[in-house]
Amino acid sequence: MSKGQQTRQLILSHAAAQASRIGLEGLSIGQLASELQLSKSGLFGHFRSKEDLQIQVLETLSEQFSAAVIRPALRLPRGKLRLRALFELWLDWALGKQLHGCPFVAAAIEFDDRQGPVRDKLVNIQASWIQVLETTVELGQQAGEFKPDQDPKSLVQALYGFMLSFHFYHRLLKDPQAEARTRKSFEVFLSHLSKE
Amino acid sequence: MSKGQQTRQLILSHAAAQASRIGLEGLSIGQLASELQLSKSGLFGHFRSKEDLQIQVLETLSEQFSAAVIRPALRLPRGKLRLRALFELWLDWALGKQLHGCPFVAAAIEFDDRQGPVRDKLVNIQASWIQVLETTVELGQQAGEFKPDQDPKSLVQALYGFMLSFHFYHRLLKDPQAEARTRKSFEVFLSHLSKE
Repeated sequence: MSKGQQTRQLILSHAAAQASRIGLEGLSIGQLASELQLSKSGLFGHFRSKEDLQIQVLETLSEQFSAAVIRPALRLPRGKLRLRALFELWLDWALGKQLHGCPFVAAAIEFDDRQGPVRDKLVNIQASWIQVLETTVELGQQAGEFKPDQDPKSLVQALYGFMLSFHFYHRLLKDPQAEARTRKSFEVFLSHLSKE
Repeated sequence: MSKGQQTRQLILSHAAAQASRIGLEGLSIGQLASELQLSKSGLFGHFRSKEDLQIQVLETLSEQFSAAVIRPALRLPRGKLRLRALFELWLDWALGKQLHGCPFVAAAIEFDDRQGPVRDKLVNIQASWIQVLETTVELGQQAGEFKPDQDPKSLVQALYGFMLSFHFYHRLLKDPQAEARTRKSFEVFLSHLSKE
């Protein structure tokens, strides 16, 4: 990696860590420059605009999510084991203490009313993640582990709800039982989905 | 209502309508004054601080939510009918075209990292709403309509997930099937919950 690439990575890691706390809109090239003791013009060499920075931060977060959640789970056999691993690693991601909640949940609220390339990138990342979950359900059905008559899209939308509700109860309401309830609901969900 | 109270109501309705689009933090006394063609000092007469304005906006939204969702549903008999009405009116509220998504969902993301009276007010409103749902489940259990062995808190946390997931799929992903899937998932949920 060249020195320029290293600096770019450093800036993106720093910005990605802040995204869930201050929002993508809260990121500022000037402030990042000051926090990292870099020149503002140097930062503009890496990111042509705030929008460009926001898109690259989303790409960085997506890569972090793949490394933390998707790739480890895809090493497990298809079916229950893989779906449970995806869900548990996803919860760990949302709980992650270095992050202030899931940055994608925060970005979804920030950008659901807007148009443009940042929103498009966010939608694209979320659609890919949902596709991973749907494919996991379908492969489990093909492998005979899951009941074949259930709609993968509905199941994954419900699964997304478990995570969002956990995020809400845990982060806003500080309900100490939120995590235990979520894990239990997921097990009930999995047993309804599974054959015998 | 005195003229002063009318003005205060006008300001609060206007601010409440904007809260889901620009966030509670995006509200500004100066901008409200300019949009409503009132003097800034006049507005400061009604709201001592931005924090005071945010709290009163949350109270206004809470009253709107009660009028649109809670009170109409509580007129129905306890059990299935009441729970279904609460859920459907809640979805209508989240879909509401005059609003840009549910303002409480937006506020939850804005304030889940903060401390202070605005967050406390938001938590208080949400805890009351969750209590209404839990009591509705308990009354349905007492009336013999719902299975008695299920934990109302877990059921309501799952129900909250259906709504949040709908909000996410509908508003960010613009998925045209989101609403139909949510209503179907709710019916499956209700049939699992119900006796026979």
